[in-house]
Amino acid sequence: MNGNRFGRLFQVTTFGESHGEAMGCTVSGCPAGLELSEEDIQEDLDRRKPGQSMITTSRGEPDAVSIKSGIQDGYTTGTPIGMVIQNKDARSGKYEPFITAPRPSHGDFTYSAKFGTRNWGGGGRSSARETVNWVAAGAIAKKLLERNGIELKAHVNQIGDVEAPEVSFEEIVERSEENDVRCAHPETAEAMQDLIADYQEEGDSIGGSIYFEARGVPVGLGAPRFDSLSARLGQAMMAVPATTAFEFGLGREAREWTGKERNDDWEFDDDGNPVPVENDHGGIQGGISSGEPIYGEVTLHAPTSIPKTQQTADWETGELKEEKVIGRHDPVLPPRGVPVVEAMLALTLVDFMLLAGRLNPDRLDDQPGEYDTDYHPSSPRNE
Amino acid sequence: MNGNRFGRLFQVTTFGESHGEAMGCTVSGCPAGLELSEEDIQEDLDRRKPGQSMITTSRGEPDAVSIKSGIQDGYTTGTPIGMVIQNKDARSGKYEPFITAPRPSHGDFTYSAKFGTRNWGGGGRSSARETVNWVAAGAIAKKLLERNGIELKAHVNQIGDVEAPEVSFEEIVERSEENDVRCAHPETAEAMQDLIADYQEEGDSIGGSIYFEARGVPVGLGAPRFDSLSARLGQAMMAVPATTAFEFGLGREAREWTGKERNDDWEFDDDGNPVPVENDHGGIQGGISSGEPIYGEVTLHAPTSIPKTQQTADWETGELKEEKVIGRHDPVLPPRGVPVVEAMLALTLVDFMLLAGRLNPDRLDDQPGEYDTDYHPSSPRNE
Amino acid sequence: MNGNRFGRLFQVTTFGESHGEAMGCTVSGCPAGLELSEEDIQEDLDRRKPGQSMITTSRGEPDAVSIKSGIQDGYTTGTPIGMVIQNKDARSGKYEPFITAPRPSHGDFTYSAKFGTRNWGGGGRSSARETVNWVAAGAIAKKLLERNGIELKAHVNQIGDVEAPEVSFEEIVERSEENDVRCAHPETAEAMQDLIADYQEEGDSIGGSIYFEARGVPVGLGAPRFDSLSARLGQAMMAVPATTAFEFGLGREAREWTGKERNDDWEFDDDGNPVPVENDHGGIQGGISSGEPIYGEVTLHAPTSIPKTQQTADWETGELKEEKVIGRHDPVLPPRGVPVVEAMLALTLVDFMLLAGRLNPDRLDDQPGEYDTDYHPSSPRNE
Amino acid sequence: MNGNRFGRLFQVTTFGESHGEAMGCTVSGCPAGLELSEEDIQEDLDRRKPGQSMITTSRGEPDAVSIKSGIQDGYTTGTPIGMVIQNKDARSGKYEPFITAPRPSHGDFTYSAKFGTRNWGGGGRSSARETVNWVAAGAIAKKLLERNGIELKAHVNQIGDVEAPEVSFEEIVERSEENDVRCAHPETAEAMQDLIADYQEEGDSIGGSIYFEARGVPVGLGAPRFDSLSARLGQAMMAVPATTAFEFGLGREAREWTGKERNDDWEFDDDGNPVPVENDHGGIQGGISSGEPIYGEVTLHAPTSIPKTQQTADWETGELKEEKVIGRHDPVLPPRGVPVVEAMLALTLVDFMLLAGRLNPDRLDDQPGEYDTDYHPSSPRNE
Repeated sequence: MNGNRFGRLFQVTTFGESHGEAMGCTVSGCPAGLELSEEDIQEDLDRRKPGQSMITTSRGEPDAVSIKSGIQDGYTTGTPIGMVIQNKDARSGKYEPFITAPRPSHGDFTYSAKFGTRNWGGGGRSSARETVNWVAAGAIAKKLLERNGIELKAHVNQIGDVEAPEVSFEEIVERSEENDVRCAHPETAEAMQDLIADYQEEGDSIGGSIYFEARGVPVGLGAPRFDSLSARLGQAMMAVPATTAFEFGLGREAREWTGKERNDDWEFDDDGNPVPVENDHGGIQGGISSGEPIYGEVTLHAPTSIPKTQQTADWETGELKEEKVIGRHDPVLPPRGVPVVEAMLALTLVDFMLLAGRLNPDRLDDQPGEYDTDYHPSSPRNE
Repeated sequence: MNGNRFGRLFQVTTFGESHGEAMGCTVSGCPAGLELSEEDIQEDLDRRKPGQSMITTSRGEPDAVSIKSGIQDGYTTGTPIGMVIQNKDARSGKYEPFITAPRPSHGDFTYSAKFGTRNWGGGGRSSARETVNWVAAGAIAKKLLERNGIELKAHVNQIGDVEAPEVSFEEIVERSEENDVRCAHPETAEAMQDLIADYQEEGDSIGGSIYFEARGVPVGLGAPRFDSLSARLGQAMMAVPATTAFEFGLGREAREWTGKERNDDWEFDDDGNPVPVENDHGGIQGGISSGEPIYGEVTLHAPTSIPKTQQTADWETGELKEEKVIGRHDPVLPPRGVPVVEAMLALTLVDFMLLAGRLNPDRLDDQPGEYDTDYHPSSPRNE
Repeated sequence: MNGNRFGRLFQVTTFGESHGEAMGCTVSGCPAGLELSEEDIQEDLDRRKPGQSMITTSRGEPDAVSIKSGIQDGYTTGTPIGMVIQNKDARSGKYEPFITAPRPSHGDFTYSAKFGTRNWGGGGRSSARETVNWVAAGAIAKKLLERNGIELKAHVNQIGDVEAPEVSFEEIVERSEENDVRCAHPETAEAMQDLIADYQEEGDSIGGSIYFEARGVPVGLGAPRFDSLSARLGQAMMAVPATTAFEFGLGREAREWTGKERNDDWEFDDDGNPVPVENDHGGIQGGISSGEPIYGEVTLHAPTSIPKTQQTADWETGELKEEKVIGRHDPVLPPRGVPVVEAMLALTLVDFMLLAGRLNPDRLDDQPGEYDTDYHPSSPRNE
Repeated sequence: MNGNRFGRLFQVTTFGESHGEAMGCTVSGCPAGLELSEEDIQEDLDRRKPGQSMITTSRGEPDAVSIKSGIQDGYTTGTPIGMVIQNKDARSGKYEPFITAPRPSHGDFTYSAKFGTRNWGGGGRSSARETVNWVAAGAIAKKLLERNGIELKAHVNQIGDVEAPEVSFEEIVERSEENDVRCAHPETAEAMQDLIADYQEEGDSIGGSIYFEARGVPVGLGAPRFDSLSARLGQAMMAVPATTAFEFGLGREAREWTGKERNDDWEFDDDGNPVPVENDHGGIQGGISSGEPIYGEVTLHAPTSIPKTQQTADWETGELKEEKVIGRHDPVLPPRGVPVVEAMLALTLVDFMLLAGRLNPDRLDDQPGEYDTDYHPSSPRNE
């Protein structure tokens, strides 16, 4: 088992290594009748792709997606959607000093130890490049959610010790894509970029975090206990490369709040229905969505591949070596992580929409050329 | 799908509501030949049970486990282990004011909205009482891990703003069970207890956190990407009731560390094998265990059931009400959460031991009365 | 992994051995709002239980089911339904000659070889007694199906070389429970009983088969390719103890039919919708239900436990032995297998009803005390 | 959920429609270190591909597989193996008369009714062309099994009423690929070909069956009850397009055998180990492999696409139509079904080899460049 599958009903299966021929993923469980083109997917892939700006790796990948199945005349057919993204700029030679000596805190050692390979087939699988598949699949999930009134967005809310003030969801939607660092607060974005430039100059890298929020999520998503909405979001987000913390609602801070402070009293909305007065609970109560916005944060540690000299141990020669990781690497992960976090959020939510019966698993209601099954539940002989 | 199953190969399935007749769980995938008695399981159940001390609910539950299958002559048989724990002290009448008015930030509203029930069958399922099943299953997982040299322990490292200093694994093992709050640092434990007593007196509750650590975990556990060790731990821990944050290694703090600071250089151990110089990575690299100790933290918000007056909205009468949650509730969750966190850690690790082929899925090597399959791979006709 | 779980969304998990303390199963994924009592389940259990007549084992088991969770005020709550059935008459001593010498063609040898156990814990799991759990779970599935207009029934259509003529679904429903052998054709039933009595007298046993049919199944169930309706029925039925063949539609006979003969032309029904002229396809086309009745057959080999002397090989003493299986065993399996086959058919169909979105996974539409989630998809803040 | 996944640990995920751009599959769970090339896979694909002989469709597909990931320097790396097979000769125009009128007994109607599509995206998924993916994945499974001493082979044992006499496994291995019909008995093969030619001339098609056998399967595979070896084989084989019956051991015939006749007594082999005297049980006892050869049969109905005139009902025009299915279709399915049945058998067995711990899930023992994890279970800090 390679852990390359995500989702119970909206199922994503991925393949591909950083330095192999292609990446690819298969999405199954997408209902028929969704308008979908390669452009829809490409848009998100472009937000994740390398070489977008000074603060992203200069590896030149067009990341052009090719849909192989599951679409006809611009609409999904209800059958598996196969997608392939060719790797163009795979120069594996560059890593050679590290073939038998693991890069510090990278997946090199653990992959080699697990699979017994000393090369890039395994190491290449551990690359964040794999998330190109997630973003491709997530773009489909997002389209389905949008049709159901669910909107979601992430932005970078901290880099090093530079932290953005709280911004509204509308601001995140409008402004986060306006700067390279993908922070919805323009002044903070500038400060972040300066900070990143400084570390980059020193040959170092820096950590940061991503804030995410989803609006319009109906009450009732989540399958507690082990598949509670928070548990599944926890898995989804902790799978994001370099993640060391997942928080929702008050997150870590909740440890210092009293029950009275954190509890959200109930009131009535204009229609006379109970709604929480505030949303300190982060949109999830008892593991199930409460109808309030779902929000949280993901912490990504600093990229491990840095130009600064580090010590490694060569298991072939038995010698310690001082090496620099030469190559094209991001000095910070959150900016390109934003579409990845959005993808995992979307994949988790759309799966629960299906699990809660809020999305027809076979086909959308208003699809073109619809053929009504219900007209014919059975033949006369079947009664 | 109720989300009542955990694990791919070591599978736990649970049932039961807080105010129903019994709790129960079925463990499948435990190899034959493990010495196991009800006492082994009871020991952990007693650490989780209510009424242990002043700082736990006074609900009187013996939580006596009865094993119904899967054991013979004191050893597991390789077949599913069915366990039942009777509920003795289920006084559901107490919650009556809240039948049609949800308790603030509790699972009442979301369960009722999802399942359409206005009563305790659903609400009762959302109770932390359900974790009695997890602890029972986790006790079996722990025994299997111990046989394979893996030891794990958790303790309470923060309550409100009272934080314990760093303590060694040995100290956690030795001291955390010595006080009611389950903090391995005695002076801090006292301060925590005072703090809890204060909040309890005011009719309020307070949040806190649990630190966990596992030793002896071999290199190679984890199935990245979506089932990386960190992702599965994320799911496991975020399923723990009241959890709002999961962190491993540097956790949230990693956002402020540079790559150079956080990266762990490689050196050789006495046998000439590469080992990281430090363990800032928390025992997981690239989603796979590195052979270093695995450690992290889980934040639990304050209990939502508090004697203080709170506002709720009665969906039957359409009126706002000021109510107190009367009943027997913990003023703080981490002390009783310690065995729960240990159980989820154990269940996750044992599952990966099986997935990585490090544990024979059918039977242990040195079990009594072993019958060697290998003597007879096939009959002569089978060649 | 013990293979004790069935179903993707309507999930059954079982435990228990023939000679252990109790059998039990947990059903998850049953929507809230289904009227359900222990009596509903008991009815089917009574049809499966031993000691019903001369042609069933005389083992005296009341097979009384106790529901531990998931029900409140006579309705399901949407949470897992835990059920336990005590074993009363477990006299394992009787099998002693076979402890270290496997019974011919029984599961003794393979279970012992797999799990390394020489005793009844494992052997007991292989007993057909385990199907008591399936029937209990199946009774719930049947109730859900009935609410959706799906009716199903099985009967015994062959014992040895005595074969029943084709009978209508109505006859099967009305007559199959009228005689001990559960054959809907009374004259054949008598001939079957005579045949069974003859074999029983000789100390031998005999094989047979069960015909099953489901009516009212809507078009569109099945998830081809690997989870096509026929594939999942294949798994479900081949799991039934002693099954050596599964057929649907023309079954094995289809090998001798031409395309023109077997193909079912299309015509219009009274409402102007296309329906097949005949149903030689057995209600499944392309792995998906066609709206026609689903029918097929399951072949059960003769019980392996027979009073006649058989040769076994004692792996402890190294000696060949001539032994009789003393005990209380059925001379033929299909009569008690009828409710088991019905249960597996029901469990498969209800799972696909959920997978195809034809059954609300959280709660039934017309349940009492319904609380409408849709009134409140989200708070104003959530838009 | 599209049902496009097979296997618990050796996982296959497929995509692709008959008339789409490409077919593809991802295999995960294959250990590192298996020597594997595109040629290994191509060999089996060539046995399945159309246009091989007069009795197969003349559709011209080279079915050339391209491996995109998971292989390095000729060996598997332990990461997912992505494979793509381009569709070259997809002339969907040919089926146009049937766009709004379902072909008799084909998947047209049910796919259209389920997904609401009136075209070939869905219908194309229902095509037997999809099995190209299964055969590609199965070729990898076969290589793994062979390394472990497990050999398997299928042949065509009946077409219409022409039935082959019993032949030995060796004959099946040696002779079945020598003739177009893939029957290991040359005289029968000739008779079969004549029969097929006759039906083909009439514009009709005919059913048939495939016999399969596996040798060298160790004792202990299978996870009863629901995942018994027979249940999982049942699912695997019933997923094969056009299958209407699955039998193992005596199959359907078992209904007429007595216990004494069918039971296989035990004796000792030369090493003093118990072995069954015969193998009427078909290599599976109690749902677990017995160490004897596993054998059975799969019945495939006649191809539904025939040149003969058939009646269909046009749901657009509301008119009955007499149509012929023009195109390139096989007059009989078993000859090309042989590699498909072998693939499903191999995929099932390799999955159970992993589940039973008989195959290292991460890497093969004797792979080149092996890096021994066990040298370094943990750092000193980890003890």
